[in-house]
Amino acid sequence: MRGFFITFEGIDGAGKTTQQHLAAQALREQGYDVLESREPGGTQLAEKVRALVLDPELPLTTATQTLLYLAARSEHVDKLLRPALEAGKIIICDRFNDSTLVYQGLAQGKAPEEIAQLRRLGAFATGGLEPDLTLVFDADPAELLARRQQRGVQDRYEQQGLEFQQRLRAGFLQLAEAEPQRLQVIDALGTQQEVTAKVLQVIGRVISGEK
Amino acid sequence: MRGFFITFEGIDGAGKTTQQHLAAQALREQGYDVLESREPGGTQLAEKVRALVLDPELPLTTATQTLLYLAARSEHVDKLLRPALEAGKIIICDRFNDSTLVYQGLAQGKAPEEIAQLRRLGAFATGGLEPDLTLVFDADPAELLARRQQRGVQDRYEQQGLEFQQRLRAGFLQLAEAEPQRLQVIDALGTQQEVTAKVLQVIGRVISGEK
Repeated sequence: MRGFFITFEGIDGAGKTTQQHLAAQALREQGYDVLESREPGGTQLAEKVRALVLDPELPLTTATQTLLYLAARSEHVDKLLRPALEAGKIIICDRFNDSTLVYQGLAQGKAPEEIAQLRRLGAFATGGLEPDLTLVFDADPAELLARRQQRGVQDRYEQQGLEFQQRLRAGFLQLAEAEPQRLQVIDALGTQQEVTAKVLQVIGRVISGEK
Repeated sequence: MRGFFITFEGIDGAGKTTQQHLAAQALREQGYDVLESREPGGTQLAEKVRALVLDPELPLTTATQTLLYLAARSEHVDKLLRPALEAGKIIICDRFNDSTLVYQGLAQGKAPEEIAQLRRLGAFATGGLEPDLTLVFDADPAELLARRQQRGVQDRYEQQGLEFQQRLRAGFLQLAEAEPQRLQVIDALGTQQEVTAKVLQVIGRVISGEK
């Protein structure tokens, strides 16, 4: 039995990470073997790459960032994700190729041909592995920003400003519109319980249809 | 005046590095402003990537290696090579995209479509920058191996064995045959003086035709 590959996507601050843990816990209680992972991460190399990309002393061009993320992804797929799928696990992964398409592509105003090139690069890095299901956590960035400021959270994406966040959101929604079978948009502005219920409903529907 | 971009390619042990220094010195004596560089290298990120790729504790797949080399190349082009060309310098760079095509492509027995994909990846990394001239240092690996063993030299490529070296050589010759205008094959088995004379003759001919 092959496992099931689910990715969580969307702008930061929409509750992806919290919902990942809650969904993993609920699925484990239902008896599934669940692997939680994130990008860039999951392997020794990926953590080193993450450190390089996030190092403020080492400003990188978008193309270099893209290639580093893809190198980490390639390793992640080979060493962790494919073996987990072959062992029949459900993977929930925080970010994957869709984030590259949005952060290094659509939100940077890249042309359609450049987006197509990013897709080919992604396919090279993953050997063609695609998620069975992708949940896009969607919310108005202005609303999220207000919530984050209440909590005193600051990170580099926030510093790029609200306009960039709006472009990220538009990018994810564009991907969801183009591939409605794989990408499901989740309204991230409900209560934690409401969002978790919706997440488990979508995952349950897709898993039961497959298995 | 735009500079001139020369790459030195070929299997290890054929004298590339020595000839690079000799050619750079001779060109400087002729009054040219010369930048010597190497791949992966030339930037802070590239040196870190080099350390990752060469770390024996961290065995990487071919795809991951390729993406890391390309990330380093992207940075090298943006931070070092393009500015040098714009400043009118002659660059002599030890390895570039041709090495990726041979080491991670042709010598691994990749299919033509995969080689084409590597070319597209290379173009993405370099923003389309191609060498004006590439010297392929060519020699029978069996002959080189005998010389190296006399000198007590050992490295990881040598450990991959003579058969792999033969495949590398064949890969470089295949590239040279496909693009005879850009790639010039240099017989690396002559004396150092003979090889240097040939190198300077080829470079001089191409530079004088261009400038």
